[in-house]
Amino acid sequence: MTAPILVVGGGPAGLSAAHALAATGQSVALVDKADRLGGAPILSGYARLVPSGEWAKDAIGGMVRRVETDKRIEVHRSTTVKNFIGTPGSFQASLSGGSSFAVGAAILCTGFTHFDSVNKPEWGFGTYPDVVTTTQVEQMLSSGQGVRCPSDGRAPERVAILLCVGSRDRQIGREWCSKICCTVSSNLAMEIREQLPNCSVYIYYMDIRTFGLYEDLYYWESQEKHKVKYIKARIAEVTSDGKRLIVKGEDTLVKRPITIPFDLVVHAIGMDPNVDNMTLAAVFDVKLEKHGHIQKASSYSNMSATSRPGVFVAGAATGPETIDDSIAQGQSAAMAALTSVRAEFREAAE
Amino acid sequence: MTAPILVVGGGPAGLSAAHALAATGQSVALVDKADRLGGAPILSGYARLVPSGEWAKDAIGGMVRRVETDKRIEVHRSTTVKNFIGTPGSFQASLSGGSSFAVGAAILCTGFTHFDSVNKPEWGFGTYPDVVTTTQVEQMLSSGQGVRCPSDGRAPERVAILLCVGSRDRQIGREWCSKICCTVSSNLAMEIREQLPNCSVYIYYMDIRTFGLYEDLYYWESQEKHKVKYIKARIAEVTSDGKRLIVKGEDTLVKRPITIPFDLVVHAIGMDPNVDNMTLAAVFDVKLEKHGHIQKASSYSNMSATSRPGVFVAGAATGPETIDDSIAQGQSAAMAALTSVRAEFREAAE
Repeated sequence: MTAPILVVGGGPAGLSAAHALAATGQSVALVDKADRLGGAPILSGYARLVPSGEWAKDAIGGMVRRVETDKRIEVHRSTTVKNFIGTPGSFQASLSGGSSFAVGAAILCTGFTHFDSVNKPEWGFGTYPDVVTTTQVEQMLSSGQGVRCPSDGRAPERVAILLCVGSRDRQIGREWCSKICCTVSSNLAMEIREQLPNCSVYIYYMDIRTFGLYEDLYYWESQEKHKVKYIKARIAEVTSDGKRLIVKGEDTLVKRPITIPFDLVVHAIGMDPNVDNMTLAAVFDVKLEKHGHIQKASSYSNMSATSRPGVFVAGAATGPETIDDSIAQGQSAAMAALTSVRAEFREAAE
Repeated sequence: MTAPILVVGGGPAGLSAAHALAATGQSVALVDKADRLGGAPILSGYARLVPSGEWAKDAIGGMVRRVETDKRIEVHRSTTVKNFIGTPGSFQASLSGGSSFAVGAAILCTGFTHFDSVNKPEWGFGTYPDVVTTTQVEQMLSSGQGVRCPSDGRAPERVAILLCVGSRDRQIGREWCSKICCTVSSNLAMEIREQLPNCSVYIYYMDIRTFGLYEDLYYWESQEKHKVKYIKARIAEVTSDGKRLIVKGEDTLVKRPITIPFDLVVHAIGMDPNVDNMTLAAVFDVKLEKHGHIQKASSYSNMSATSRPGVFVAGAATGPETIDDSIAQGQSAAMAALTSVRAEFREAAE
C-alpha cells in the first residue's frame, strides 16, 4: 500500500479529487479547516446551482456523502496543515491536531474567500440593512424563508443587482473578473421573479459575461421569459431617501445620470484569493501569482502542477472558477498526483 | 486485460483522456477522422495559445507525441466509428476501415467546427480578400510569414477585429457565446502590435468577455501596454471604397454612426457544433442539446456522462470550450469511464 495522497480542502474540487483518487484504489487524507465538508456551496448555503439547477445541499451534499462513506478516504475536519516537507513520493505532513504522517503527493483545493462588501463602502453595504450580497440572497432562497428586505421583512417590489462588486475594480485592488457572478446574478434574478411575480429586477453591469451556453440559458432567458432588465451603468453610490434605497450613477449607453429607488440592493460579490493563501504558500512552499492566487503551471501536459513538484492545485484556488470546472480540475489533479507517485503510471506515460 | 476504452477525437480533450487512461494501465483505442492528431490547434495551425503563450505546435504537439509513443494506445487515423452497440463494459465498435472489436466504454472528444464566415455575407468575407478570420491570422503568425493583406501582401496599417462572428447572433441561428474569442482576439491584437508597431488595431465588441484572470492579462494588458483600442459597436456591414475596406455601424456608447477605413478586417469566428454531430448522435445513440452540441449530464457527481450509460463526453463537443478546460474535462471523463468499466473502481466509490 502506498502512502496516502493529501487533499487540502473539501469543496467541489477537493471532493472530486478525493473521490477520483479513491476510485483508483489510492488512499486519501482529506483535510478541511471547517468543521464540515462541502466548501463554499455548503458553508455559505447556496441555493440552486448554475447550470444544473440542482440545490447545492443535494448536489454538493451528495459529493460529501460519497467521500464520507468511502473507507479509503480519511477525513480530518477542523484541521489545517502546519508543516509539509520532503520530496515527491515521500512527503511528511504535520496537521494542527498534532499527527504527522507520510504522504505521496498533495493537491491544494483551497478555494477562495468571498469579497467582503464593507470594502466598497460607497455602495451602502454595512450602512443600510437592505443592501445585501448575492450570498445572502442564496441563503434567503435555500432556507425557504424567501427573498425579503432585512429591515422590516417586507417582500421587495424593486430589486437592483449590482455586478462587479469586488471585481474589475482597480481602486480596491481587484483587477480580475470573478467569472461566474454575471450568470449567477441572472439565475438569482429569475428565482426572485418566480417567487415574487410583481417584483421588478434590474441588473447593473459593465459587460455581461454569460459565456458559452449560458448566453441564452441565462442572459436571454432572464430577459425574455422573466422580464429582468439589464442596464449598462457606472454606479457611483447607494444612498437612502429615508424610505427606499437610491442607486445613483450613469447609464453608459444613454449617457445620462440615473437616480433610481429600490427596496433591496444586491451586491454580486466577487471571489477573492483565499485569505489563507500566504500561509498555504509558506507551508507548501508554492508560489502565488500576482493577485495572490496559487500559481498554476502553464504547461498543457501537466496542467495541475504548482511551482513545487509533487504538489498540485485545482479549482478556485488558482483564480475565480465555476463549480463545474472545479470538479473537472479536481479529477485532473488527481490524475496528475497519481502519475507522480505511481511508478507504473509513469511507465505508461513515458 | 480489460477491453480497451474508445476515445473518439484526438484534439486536446481526446489526447488528455487517452493519456490519463493509459497512465492507469488502461488500453485505449483512439480514433480520429483526420489523418493526424491534434485537433483544431494543430489542424488549423494555431499560433501562441491562451493563456500559456506556448506555440500550439509545441504544446499540443507534445501531447500528440506523448500519446503516439504510448504502447497502450492504439491510434486509428483517417477513421470514423460506423457502429457502436452493446452495454457498459461490453460494447462492440465497428470502424470505417472494417475492423470491429470489444470496448468497455467510449469517450466522445469530437470538438467543434469553426463558424464559416460566408454565412455572414454582409461583413465582407468571401467578397473582399482582405477580410479574413482569426484562424487565418493564427496561420499567418504560426507560419512565420507575418500578418499581411492577402490582396497584395502589404503589411496593414489599420486592422479591425470584429467579435461575435457566428456567435450571439440569432439572425443566423447562433445564440450561444463562443466563450474564448474575446480573449483570443485580445491576444492576436497584441501579437499584431508586436510584429507591426505602426499598425493600429481596433476591436469591435458587444461585451468584452475576458473572464477570470484574463481580465488584466489580456483586456487591460492589450490596452495599456499595446494600445489596442476597444469600441462597443453594432457593425452593419463591411464594404470597400476601392482602396480600403470600410467598416460601417454604430458606436453604441457615443450613439453615432461610424464609417472607418481599414486595411485588414478580421472576423473573430465562433465555435459551431461539430458538423458531424448528427451522425455521432445516431452512431452512439446519445442526445444532442438544443443547439446541436452533445448533451452532458447535469449531475455534479458524474459530470462527463451523456444520455447513454457507458458513453462519456469532454471538451468542445459539449459547447464552446477553452483548451485548458477541455484538457481537464478529458481527464475527468477518463476517470468516469474507468469507474464504469472497473469493478474495483466502483467498489471504492460505493
